[in-house]
Parts: sequence; C-alpha cells; structure tokens
Amino acid sequence: MKQSMMFIPTLREIPSDADVRSHQLLLRAGFVRQNAAGVYSFLPLGKKVLQKVEKIVREEMERAGAVELLMPALQQAELWQESGRWYSYGPEMMRMQDRHNRDFALGPTHEEMITSLVRDEINSYKKLPLTLYQIQTKFRDEKRPRFGILRGREFLMKDAYSFHANHESLDEVYEKLFQAYSNIFSRCGLDFRAVIADSGAMGGKDTHEFMVLSDIGEDTIAYSDSSSFAANIEMAPVIVNYEVSHEAEAQLAKVDTPNQHSIEEVSKFLSVPKEKCIKSMLFKVDDQYVLVLVRGDHEVNDIKIKNILEASVVELATPKEAKEVLGCTIGSLGPVGVPSSVCILSDHAVKFMVNGICGANEEGMHFSGVNPLRDLENIQYEDVRFIQEGDPSPDGKGKVVFAKGIEVGHVFKLGTRYSEAMNATFLDENGKSRPMIMGCYGIGVSRTVAAIAEQFNDENGLVWPRSVSPFDLHLVPINTKQEDQKELSDKLYELLTKDYEVLYDDRMERPGVKFADSDLIGLPIRITVGKRAAEGIVEVKIRQTGESMEINTENLIETIEKFIVK
Amino acid sequence: MKQSMMFIPTLREIPSDADVRSHQLLLRAGFVRQNAAGVYSFLPLGKKVLQKVEKIVREEMERAGAVELLMPALQQAELWQESGRWYSYGPEMMRMQDRHNRDFALGPTHEEMITSLVRDEINSYKKLPLTLYQIQTKFRDEKRPRFGILRGREFLMKDAYSFHANHESLDEVYEKLFQAYSNIFSRCGLDFRAVIADSGAMGGKDTHEFMVLSDIGEDTIAYSDSSSFAANIEMAPVIVNYEVSHEAEAQLAKVDTPNQHSIEEVSKFLSVPKEKCIKSMLFKVDDQYVLVLVRGDHEVNDIKIKNILEASVVELATPKEAKEVLGCTIGSLGPVGVPSSVCILSDHAVKFMVNGICGANEEGMHFSGVNPLRDLENIQYEDVRFIQEGDPSPDGKGKVVFAKGIEVGHVFKLGTRYSEAMNATFLDENGKSRPMIMGCYGIGVSRTVAAIAEQFNDENGLVWPRSVSPFDLHLVPINTKQEDQKELSDKLYELLTKDYEVLYDDRMERPGVKFADSDLIGLPIRITVGKRAAEGIVEVKIRQTGESMEINTENLIETIEKFIVK
Repeated sequence: MKQSMMFIPTLREIPSDADVRSHQLLLRAGFVRQNAAGVYSFLPLGKKVLQKVEKIVREEMERAGAVELLMPALQQAELWQESGRWYSYGPEMMRMQDRHNRDFALGPTHEEMITSLVRDEINSYKKLPLTLYQIQTKFRDEKRPRFGILRGREFLMKDAYSFHANHESLDEVYEKLFQAYSNIFSRCGLDFRAVIADSGAMGGKDTHEFMVLSDIGEDTIAYSDSSSFAANIEMAPVIVNYEVSHEAEAQLAKVDTPNQHSIEEVSKFLSVPKEKCIKSMLFKVDDQYVLVLVRGDHEVNDIKIKNILEASVVELATPKEAKEVLGCTIGSLGPVGVPSSVCILSDHAVKFMVNGICGANEEGMHFSGVNPLRDLENIQYEDVRFIQEGDPSPDGKGKVVFAKGIEVGHVFKLGTRYSEAMNATFLDENGKSRPMIMGCYGIGVSRTVAAIAEQFNDENGLVWPRSVSPFDLHLVPINTKQEDQKELSDKLYELLTKDYEVLYDDRMERPGVKFADSDLIGLPIRITVGKRAAEGIVEVKIRQTGESMEINTENLIETIEKFIVK
Repeated sequence: MKQSMMFIPTLREIPSDADVRSHQLLLRAGFVRQNAAGVYSFLPLGKKVLQKVEKIVREEMERAGAVELLMPALQQAELWQESGRWYSYGPEMMRMQDRHNRDFALGPTHEEMITSLVRDEINSYKKLPLTLYQIQTKFRDEKRPRFGILRGREFLMKDAYSFHANHESLDEVYEKLFQAYSNIFSRCGLDFRAVIADSGAMGGKDTHEFMVLSDIGEDTIAYSDSSSFAANIEMAPVIVNYEVSHEAEAQLAKVDTPNQHSIEEVSKFLSVPKEKCIKSMLFKVDDQYVLVLVRGDHEVNDIKIKNILEASVVELATPKEAKEVLGCTIGSLGPVGVPSSVCILSDHAVKFMVNGICGANEEGMHFSGVNPLRDLENIQYEDVRFIQEGDPSPDGKGKVVFAKGIEVGHVFKLGTRYSEAMNATFLDENGKSRPMIMGCYGIGVSRTVAAIAEQFNDENGLVWPRSVSPFDLHLVPINTKQEDQKELSDKLYELLTKDYEVLYDDRMERPGVKFADSDLIGLPIRITVGKRAAEGIVEVKIRQTGESMEINTENLIETIEKFIVK
C-alpha cells in the first residue's frame, strides 16, 4: 500500500488528553481518533491491526469448534425484561425508543438474545452441544471512559455462548475455549495470565479472566514466579505452609493496653512484631455474627468468608453491634470467652502462632501468651486471608508475585442462570424437559489492540509484533526525486508485496519526517533506500532491537526471513 | 464444517410473515432470524454469505485505491447540527441520549463524521485525493421495514467517501468506483444495471444507482434491450426520432366537445387516436406559469421540467389558477392564443404532429387541424416526457424495456455540500483556501445478500452462485451408521477440505430430510455417499441444473473442477 493514499495523520506532540502510553501512541501514530468521549474511529492503520486480531480470534474459535453468527445491536426491551436485567443493569446500558415508542437496548452483551434464538430452534439433546460466537460492536455507557480504546463506550467484542445437555459437556467446551483464548493472546504476542476469578453475582461456578500484565491495569493479580498459576488476589487460595515455632509456651496473661487499638499500636506498645498479634474482626454474615481471626500481618478476605459460609452478604459489624455481642468495641476484640452464639473462623496461620497477643474483649486490655491450640475453643480453621507477595504459590511451584492486569478476556460457566429465566429447555434422553446449561466467553477485541500497544512500545513509538502489525515491512526511499532511489524502491515494492504486506512511503517528505513517522508507526522491519541505491544496497532496520545493517538487495529476502517472526 | 456443529434451523413450512421468495427461503433454510421488526440475526450460513460479499467488496474497493477504516455508530448531535441534517433528517434517524443527557444519533450514514475527521487532519492539496471506506452497521428507523433483510432498520453497509482538490480528480475516482461497483455485483453473480439517477435534494451532479433486476424492486428502470444503457425512468432522456407524417395539412377549426375533458374522452368523442391529441397541462414553476404540451399518449415528466427550468418547485396549477391565467378550467386548456406572460414548453413529439386536436381555452371547445409549426407560436421544444417501453434506447442502441429494480449500490458526486457547511477546507497550489470536493459511494451489503437470494432460487430452495455460497460442496452420506458410507465420507471430507469449503452432513437424519435440507440450503454441488460407497462410487448433483451423475471417487476432483465455477 502506498503511504500517499493512506490516511495516517501523525502527531509530533503528545496529546494533552491522553494519559497512558498506548493511547498517546495510537493517537500520535494515526491509528485512532476520538469522535466523542469513549467513542473512537479506527483510522486505516488501526483498522488493519483490528482485522489482524479478529483473524486470529476467528481461526482459534473455529479450531475450538465454535461457529460464527452475527446478532444485531438493537435489542427489544422485552428480552431483557424476561431475564430481569432490564431493571438491574443500570445506566451503563444504553437505551432508546424507536419511532413507535418501543423500548430498545443497544446490546452491552448478548446472553438474552442468543438464549432467545437458541430456545426457539433447539429442543432436543441431539442438537447439543452448540457453541456460537460473533465479533460485534457493543455499547456500554461507562461512567468514566478512559485510556482511549482501552475502556470505550462503543467497542468491538468477540462474544461466544455455549449450550449443553450436561455439565461434563460444558466442562469440555470450557476447556477448549480456555485453550483457544490462551492461543489467541499468545499469538498476539501478549504477556498475559489466565486468572482464577470470582464468579460473583453471575451465580456461575468456574470463571477465568485473561489478564494482560500492565501497570495501568485496574485489577491486581497474584501469580507464581515459576509456573502458570495466576488468580485475582481476591480468589487466590493460600496454602498451609507455616513454620512451626519451637518457642516454649508462656502462660496466658491479661495485659494493659490503654488506648491501643490497631495491630500497629498494640505491637508497638508491647514491643512485639505484628505477626505475633492476632487480628480479630467481627462480621455480620447474613444474620449471624462471625469473629474472624488472622495473623497481625495478614488481611481478611471477605470473599473467602462469603464462599466458605455460602453467604449472600458479608459486612463488618458496627462498633455498637460489637459492644452488644462481645461486650467491647472494636480495638480490643478477641476470641477468648466468646459466647457460643458467635462462630469463630480463623485463618490457618493463627493455628501456628505461639505466645500471641489478642484482644481481651475488655476496653484497653489484651491477652498475651495466647497459644491458640491450647487456649482457644470452638474454632473453625480455614483459608480466610488475602494472599501476599512472597507467599508460596498455591500450586506449590515458586513464590507469589503481584502485578496489575488489563482484562482482555473472560470465560465463564453460566449454568442455568439465563435458560431458567427465559425458559430455554430441551428434552433429554429420557424425554424429560430440562433447562440448557450454558457457558459464555468474551474477548475485548478493540481493548486487545490497546493492550498490545501498551506492552509493545519504546520512546520512539509503537513496536508491533508481526502477527498483528498493520504491515510487515516499511519501505522508505529517502528521496523519491532521485531516479535511482525511486526505481529501486518501485522494484522492491513489486517484489516484496508478493510475500509480505508492505507500506511504501512514496511521500515527498524530508527524511527526518519519514524516519520519525516510521518509528512511530512501528512496523517490524524498515527497508531504507538511500544513497547506495545505484549499487543495489539498502539499509534494513529491525524496529524492536534497533539493529540496522546494509544489505545487498540480492540478499534482502534472506535477511527479512531471518529477522521476521512468522 | 460438520453440520452437527452448525446452527442451521430449517423450516418445512413457509413462514406466514414472509411475502417474498428471498425472505421465505432465507428463513426456511436457516440463514436469518428476525429479532424485532426490521432487525435480524445472521445465523451461521447467513453470516458466511455476508462475509463472502464483504470479501468481494473489500477486494474491489482496495483495487480501486480506497482505504478501509471504521467509524463508530454513535454520533454526537453537534456534528449533525453543523450540516443541518439533525433537523431535516426526520424520524428515520434513530436518536438517543447518553447518561449525561447528551444527544446522539445512531449513524444512518457517515458524511458528517468523515468530513469532520478529514477536515481535522488534511489541510493541503498535497494530501488529496483521499478515498476512505468502511463496512459498518447502519441504523435507519424505516417506517415500513419489509422483505426481511432487504429493507431492515439495522443493516450492514459499505460506505465510501472521497475528497478532492478539483472536479477532474472527483471524476476520475467516480469512474474507478463505478467500475469497482460493476465488478462487485458481477462477481456476486447478479443481473443488474447501473442506472442514471436523479441527484435530487443532495444537490450533486452525476449519480448512478446500481439496481438488481427483480419484480419485487421498488424502482422502475428503463434499460436498453441491446446495450448497457439504463436509467431511472424519471431520468431517462427521450431521443427525437419521430416519423414525419405526409398527411395534407387541414385548416384550423374550432369544434364542440361538450363535457369532454380527458384525452381519453376527447379522442373517443372525435374518433381520433390519442396520439392525434395534444395534452396541455398548466404548471406553476416557482412563481411562473408554464403550459406544458405532450402528445396524448405520452406522460409529462415534471423532474425534466424542473431541470430544464432550473426550478425549485414544480406543481400542477389549480383549476382556479388555470381559469385566471387562461380563462378556462382544466380539460379544455390549449396553446392557441396564450398570453405572453405564460411560457409554453412542449415535448419534441408535438412538433411532428399533423392535424392534431387541442383545447381551445374555452369550456367545451377544442381546436382540430392543429399543425404546431404552422399554428403555434413562442414555443420552447424540449424533452419533457417520460420514456416509454418500445421507445428507442437513448444511446441509440436497441429499444427501451422497463423493469423493476432493487437498489443495492449508489455512487454520487456530492460536490461541496458537506465541506462548505462543515468548513472542510484545504490550501490549493496558490495557498488559497477552498472547500474540498467530495463524492460518496454506498453498497447495501446485507441487502445484496437478499438480492442474490431473490435472483437465485427455484421451487426447492436457494441456488447460490459459488462466489457467495456459504460452502462450495455439500457432502451427504445417506446413512452414517453404515460403516462403509461413514468411512468413505470421512475420507472424502478430509480430501476435499484441502481445496474446497465443505459442509459435511454428519447428522443422523433420514435421507429425505437430508436431501430436502440440502436443496433448501443450495450449495453448488452435492456429493451423496450411498449404497455404492463400498465400490468407491458416489453421486454428484449440480444444484443449479439438477444434473446428477454417478462418479468413481478417483474422478471426483476432476468432475468437481468441471462443474464448479471459479
């Protein structure tokens, strides 16, 4: 493609409204432009990257046995009323009325629509399983759209839905799509982790998020420094692997701790390390009071409490409630002498403590010499804390490291959440009607483009991996008015386009402008045709490493082959 | 692709809400489903056809030098206010508000947005011309969506826009895209005509519509039976090619025609053929009265009057106005003795009339023996009538035939309509600021799929041309439980997928169901594996001709090659 025919408006200055590298560079290199807050156009280069990502997505989805269709953006309110989400979705769902005043949503997702399509056509286990996907524009009226195409209000998404007669079938397809997702993000060149996530309000079971590691990510991931294990920090299990102390057990004794409330204060006041303190927190779990214990240097994870107790709502008790239940306000709570109506849930780490400190349920008083196995009764030991950096990896391999992640994909076992609400049933082998079991699987296609740009850039611009680069090669004659340069460039363009996608900078611009634009755009290899054109010698520069070499055009293909990643 | 994994819900019955063949068959063969009035899902087979058409469109657009981008559906009201169309577009434009109560349109088209994008980045003639296109979802709230995906409210469109420094450049690109459009519709296998159309309210100059010939079309086309000439009947010029009569001229005489008003009545009353009568109609053209004459068997074309007189509004005068101006009400109007304030515009055919009849501007009176060249004065002879079937083709080749057409494409010289309103200017060679000259070019991609289905079907189902067929071959084992049939089918599937797209009917269905579905879906070639599988013999059936033959699998590729259209 000749650059003079493209529309690549590059910018020298960093746009003032762009605060992350990917957004700055996608604007500066002329890949995208904003049309309204969170609403973007993909200019020709951006559209090309989008198409490369789409192609990878399609290939891997098809390989996993998914079949493509295309559903509309306009969705009748009635559909969403059936599932109940018309009322629960909130202002993020864009709504409108047609000329007959009928309510429509602009689809933020398509569970309702696909469930409706499939229930109308499939009624037998013989036609299951079925996995359908689309690559389609979604609308979500984000409160704070930001980072350009990373979090927009109109964006391109690949969404897939699977329908099953039993859970084994769902497990099988979930595995396949999990693998497809891994392949997709690997082929995009991304450093990512498949992260165990919280199934949350969706009521499903297994769920993984695919997170691209990046400092601008909004989620924190705990992953192993030596294996593929990764989980959202809220979900990462902590394995019981605490050192057993050989310290002699002291006697339990009440000590004065006037006005000392936090672990920080108490440990300082008593001159003991924080890990010698037991943190006691009273929660209200549904209608039951639960005292939760963790070691002083650990943090309580209320999602784990919720899951262990299979509860709906977990909230910290108020000081007034604490006073009522334990006879003392927050700051001196503790597990000794707790009434039997309060259940005590303790983290495993507490069990290994020797001569610890804990609140005495009396204002300004703590116990010292607490040996849980000796002194505490009626305790359920569970994993109730957040994992920490340096903890052993839950899979037993290596240690845990934290990182921020950008969510680019999500696989989810939905179960019968939608099929039950919307009456999507089938007849099983015995002629019995049952709701279909469903899975759903999303990839933010335009967000993936942003994530790639965020991971692949340097001080001079973007540095595309070949698999998603808008073109393979940038052919740049220094001076197109020089006959020999023009002639050689034309010849090379014709030759190279047979096997590669070539962007040919045929513009009458100064070399400095051409080189700066070329670095900014970031194609894997630049071929510069300059003074030595008459000798048949060109410069080959590798964008990623900056390596550059003079090559006789006879050896050009060979050199490209050597450096370009297939 | 194995059919058991696809989602192809076929129907035996004709859906009651589908009133044209394409819609009935696309529903019955499981290509589309309706989600709301005028809003459709493309199921896997439909999506595949859509992608084939998209691919053809992309290839031809790129070949014509157009570059792809992707603009959003959400468009801020401010953009449309700049062009003025926010107020003039009417209820067909879908509108909504975001969570901050800002007004948005769901793009029915993208002139405003592309003009805004280009004006912000291009400021020099050096960066022109520029041709950009997208394949993107459009929204138009049609009053009466109908014929399924032929006229929907959400549909897929290819829209292109070109920007130029001068009209020669626009002409050049217009030509190229005209050719690209011809290639696209030819490659889709369509019988179409590029029709000269009315530039109408858009204020442009040249414009062509690409019309697929079909009885369900909403427009009437006049085309030549022996050349490529075609025009919207409103626009077709009539060439002056009337027989000269050798009849002796009679005297002008006033005759009584009591209560005879229409041409029908007068010709019957006076026992003369209609073509001997002069039809006189009084129009109000802007602020001027114009008496228009055509032969009694012809019809006045008011668009031609408008264009000849470069008028804004052309309307028939009321009886009261006729009385005031010509002293007589409609029914006896005529060109003899007309006051000089009224201009007379006559069709060329009238000039060739001998001894004609015309109204005498007196109730119940006509003139006979009217010889226009002798008796009528101050007449401007022009082409003011509608062309008729049987008229010579305007290009001089063959005769005119009428047909109904489905508009699938439109190319249009916009001029400066948008660039002036939106201040999209550039500096020319002399440093002078001028508005960019624009063209716009649309193709209804999803509508094209419907048009193909409308032209390619028979009593058993759809009959896809190979270029847009969802698959090339339908491989149908009669009984997958028969080991030899299954084995041969599996082997053939593996072999054929190397060079062809194969739909493999691996379902456990009765042969009758499989064959009926196969005919309905309409792939170009069906390969049936049946009783003679053990001998290596299969049946090859050509969908279009119904021709069928038994073939040894050794000769299968050869046979397919012979019958399949590349």
